[in-house]
Amino acid sequence: MMLEFTKMHGLGNDFIVLNGFEEDPGVDYSALARRLCDRHFGVGGDGILVVLPAAAPADIRMRIINADGSEAQMCGNGIRCFAKYVYEQRLIAAERFVVETLAGPIIPELTVSDGRVTSVRVNMGKPGLLRSQLPMNGPEGRVIGEVLAAGGAEYRITSVRMGVPHTVILVPDIGAIDPARLGPAIERHPVFLEGTNVNWVEVHNEREISVRTWERGAGSTLACGTGSCAAAVATALNRKTGRKVVVHLAAGDLLIEWESDDTVYMTGPAETVFQGRWSGTIA
Amino acid sequence: MMLEFTKMHGLGNDFIVLNGFEEDPGVDYSALARRLCDRHFGVGGDGILVVLPAAAPADIRMRIINADGSEAQMCGNGIRCFAKYVYEQRLIAAERFVVETLAGPIIPELTVSDGRVTSVRVNMGKPGLLRSQLPMNGPEGRVIGEVLAAGGAEYRITSVRMGVPHTVILVPDIGAIDPARLGPAIERHPVFLEGTNVNWVEVHNEREISVRTWERGAGSTLACGTGSCAAAVATALNRKTGRKVVVHLAAGDLLIEWESDDTVYMTGPAETVFQGRWSGTIA
Repeated sequence: MMLEFTKMHGLGNDFIVLNGFEEDPGVDYSALARRLCDRHFGVGGDGILVVLPAAAPADIRMRIINADGSEAQMCGNGIRCFAKYVYEQRLIAAERFVVETLAGPIIPELTVSDGRVTSVRVNMGKPGLLRSQLPMNGPEGRVIGEVLAAGGAEYRITSVRMGVPHTVILVPDIGAIDPARLGPAIERHPVFLEGTNVNWVEVHNEREISVRTWERGAGSTLACGTGSCAAAVATALNRKTGRKVVVHLAAGDLLIEWESDDTVYMTGPAETVFQGRWSGTIA
Repeated sequence: MMLEFTKMHGLGNDFIVLNGFEEDPGVDYSALARRLCDRHFGVGGDGILVVLPAAAPADIRMRIINADGSEAQMCGNGIRCFAKYVYEQRLIAAERFVVETLAGPIIPELTVSDGRVTSVRVNMGKPGLLRSQLPMNGPEGRVIGEVLAAGGAEYRITSVRMGVPHTVILVPDIGAIDPARLGPAIERHPVFLEGTNVNWVEVHNEREISVRTWERGAGSTLACGTGSCAAAVATALNRKTGRKVVVHLAAGDLLIEWESDDTVYMTGPAETVFQGRWSGTIA
């Protein structure tokens, strides 16, 4: 088969975008993702984003297939790439539209300059602040600045669910943190019934923080959207920042806004890296 | 800048091929390689291959710039990709031609079917069989089946230089070998004055072997061209095979021929994965 694709990334989380309006609908996207995402024998990517027609009331549909062939429900970095692609390819003419995903409808809002999408704002849902929502062992209530002993050290943790469980630790110097050394003992601490992602946060001022994330099952990653949201919620809960925070990550910045209706919005960039034409067979 | 490229691989060793006849000659290829080879923010690759005009008596010139921006002298997997590219792009009309490289002139010989290059044969030079050529400590002579104690175990080693130092160990079951566990102690054994690559070899019959390589400084790799040559020379020296051997590697096969004039030839595949058009700036 021959197919055209666009390679994009959102803060280094990289995707191969395929226009499923034009491609054969009988294609096995799981096998295709494994083939294309291989970084030596294929195009290379963390996953593929497939653009598909949607049923009303959605305007368009996104599928995300990971490099291992499994399907993801949603991905903050992926939806920004998807939104930029469908707008710039003129599949969608509006700057705000409804995308059907496995996690339900997502409504990206675009910032456009000279016909180019420069940033995308996405509703990331409401944080789960209760112990039972994380879930964590112990009496019900919020987990703000609680002491946790793990790996021979003691931490003050704030834990928040943003789709997945996140634990936030405030530190004076994020450059001194080694996620691979500290992360696993916290990730697997028995108090977390489903494990936890771990985010170290340095607060620069009340509008600006830096975050490094250890992802449950994935290790150290370049940019974690849900972790950035959890970090901003946690610094607001600890009264170190307001509810609108710029998050500095290794690969760039995200703006996180925790609105008064409790919804968290994430605004960030998406980049087109190259266009390609692949031909091959799917094993 | 905007540039067209072709992504190729030789047994999984992958390259971004650029036509330097058409591109701006003022480009900083070192910076470009670092930018393009990044697997998340760029195209992704082990290096870039630049196709350039040559001075007579060469027909064409190849530069290989590694992902870190350093320039390589030559690469067996890279030259096969290069040869396929220049023939199929009709930059060269002959099936045997002279390529100028930093390692001197290389003469690839193509097998062509329906206008497509299906395999490429390359002169890999003559093996260095003497201790002083590896170089290794000890009295002058060949190193065939010599006992080496390293990392708490004893091995029978055969050492051969194929451009770089290689040590070969015959084993009954290559699937049981863990290069990362066994390699470092042999690589850095003090008898090897410049260190050594390590190749474990299972002999299937007198025309067929399997090889796994631990590369000095690079670790476990998918396919090492010089290691395959050294392995075939070593099995011939140990009278386990003839001088024409098919080498099975994780990603495919190479044919190694040690001719009567002492020259080693390697024949193997090269694959085109996709064509692309990149635009961006070089930092």
